[in-house]
Amino acid sequence: MPERIGKYTLKMKNNVTIRSSVGIVGKKESEGPLGEYFDIAFKDNKLGQPSWEKAESALQKTAVCELMKRNNLENADIDVIFAGDLLNQCISSTFGLRELNIPFLGQYGACSTMAQTILSASVFIDSGAAERAIAVTSSHFCSAERQFRLPIEYGGQRTPTAQWTVTGSGAALLDKSEGEVSVKYATIGRINDLKVKDANNMGAAMAPAAADTIYNFFTDTNTKPTDYDLILTGDLGKVGSQLLKEILQRQNIDISQNYNDCGLMIFDLEGQDVHSGGSGCGCSASVFCSYIMKQLIENKLRNILFVATGALMSPTSSQQGESIPSIAHLLNIIKN
Amino acid sequence: MPERIGKYTLKMKNNVTIRSSVGIVGKKESEGPLGEYFDIAFKDNKLGQPSWEKAESALQKTAVCELMKRNNLENADIDVIFAGDLLNQCISSTFGLRELNIPFLGQYGACSTMAQTILSASVFIDSGAAERAIAVTSSHFCSAERQFRLPIEYGGQRTPTAQWTVTGSGAALLDKSEGEVSVKYATIGRINDLKVKDANNMGAAMAPAAADTIYNFFTDTNTKPTDYDLILTGDLGKVGSQLLKEILQRQNIDISQNYNDCGLMIFDLEGQDVHSGGSGCGCSASVFCSYIMKQLIENKLRNILFVATGALMSPTSSQQGESIPSIAHLLNIIKN
Repeated sequence: MPERIGKYTLKMKNNVTIRSSVGIVGKKESEGPLGEYFDIAFKDNKLGQPSWEKAESALQKTAVCELMKRNNLENADIDVIFAGDLLNQCISSTFGLRELNIPFLGQYGACSTMAQTILSASVFIDSGAAERAIAVTSSHFCSAERQFRLPIEYGGQRTPTAQWTVTGSGAALLDKSEGEVSVKYATIGRINDLKVKDANNMGAAMAPAAADTIYNFFTDTNTKPTDYDLILTGDLGKVGSQLLKEILQRQNIDISQNYNDCGLMIFDLEGQDVHSGGSGCGCSASVFCSYIMKQLIENKLRNILFVATGALMSPTSSQQGESIPSIAHLLNIIKN
Repeated sequence: MPERIGKYTLKMKNNVTIRSSVGIVGKKESEGPLGEYFDIAFKDNKLGQPSWEKAESALQKTAVCELMKRNNLENADIDVIFAGDLLNQCISSTFGLRELNIPFLGQYGACSTMAQTILSASVFIDSGAAERAIAVTSSHFCSAERQFRLPIEYGGQRTPTAQWTVTGSGAALLDKSEGEVSVKYATIGRINDLKVKDANNMGAAMAPAAADTIYNFFTDTNTKPTDYDLILTGDLGKVGSQLLKEILQRQNIDISQNYNDCGLMIFDLEGQDVHSGGSGCGCSASVFCSYIMKQLIENKLRNILFVATGALMSPTSSQQGESIPSIAHLLNIIKN
């Protein structure tokens, strides 16, 4: 069962193993720098579905079914699935997973969802509430654009600070047996709101949340950035990543030596015309569940911090003049 | 730490105590049959806020702050808050709670949220992942109407099967110490979809999910309906409640002796013109956190099943011709 370390951090006492994971993406992501690492890449971003929302549901279902297939598991072998996404009422998760008959706990953490679902699954596994759990999330460029911004047919101009929602999904299988990759610590994030209102600059809105959680983790565990191979945020992009480094620097925490961001890694920022980088729940999910997990298994990484960040606004709140509250959840993941 | 009982049910091993709870409502609810039991009733459903969404956020914040005040707790005394609601991207929770600086795990279970948040909090408490946790949710008639159906100014006709979204919030404080009211068992629901498409008949869509979870609980625990004082669903309303009884009857489970539904209890169905009854996350939340908790504390109830139900569709999914997947989570709550 988890032990509380400091104010915000949980230490897993048993082996909470990330047994296996699957990261899947759309066409543009497969053409980016990490293209070769994804487990499945769809050339047709509609996945043969009649709508973008149904395509996103299909992404999430594909990720979960592929994960179970690779591990020779039936639906009934999974005790609980933690899932969430960006769409109103989380319909990519609920419609994508409705036929699986797996006990379901819907999560909402915006783009922090991959860390939140793994965190929750870890507590359930570590405590014995579940023997085997799946954590999954997704995003889709076209469903997100028309829900949060404008219909893609409109062809609106994008600001330099804007990020490109990743079409992708990541699913991770967690269990208690010994394995190669484990969740060791988890820090639950708090909502931060420094009153950034620019919905085209999510990185700036989310950077303070990432800084808060990272600071809390280092304080709780009495560790420092160089104790880790990699400090990896979810989708701060170019603007938010720079801000995160600056905020932490002011607190005398220098992460510049071993820091990266999934939103900076998944696309070639110049060549793929994505402005400030990738975003969306599927960004950190697909990068973590494919590239990062493979690096861990191959011993190229051994001790990392995975800090997925989420912007907790809606189009309605922005239209009502509100700022953008944000959150970040952190996982310390190690190679055994 | 929780013990798995059967396939779907968790047994809490330590004392998981619902230490205290607060149920707050709007004007119409305060005029209903349970009016005298609510902890706070607002006469102004806008709570002095400039929008319905901000009013709903204020409801949720009021419930949480009142709960902490009554228990002489500071924000820093709460290890984690589990919160969710019906609005797109769960903005009543995120905006309502953003200033509290409490570690936050957003949940999405539609109207099953009160059971889901207490369930998740119970696992965290029982396992030691949290010493003290809050579970909270809300709904608001006016924010729900304009988001899910039509602007209230339109004055659309309501069908006889339609339900009335409760303006209300419920918040519960959980900890591990001995107390009067405990969470003993919890059953995680599965998504059910019997292809009901009528968005004006949520009760029919949700009844199969409630039946599935109740059936799983009785099977896992080898108990029967008459072992409990009350089997209480969240917001099935008149149509859904009848269907639930019929579905379970076909499986030789007769709940007719001790069954009720928060949606049937909170309003005078005829006198208050609410057609099939109350609905919304705030329905089961306000009824459970005020009336039911008071009945438990006063020994009028001693052993109940609380089964909150959620319809997991969105306006977008309905517009695309989709049916309504549903879920129900169950808690067995006892008076010590």
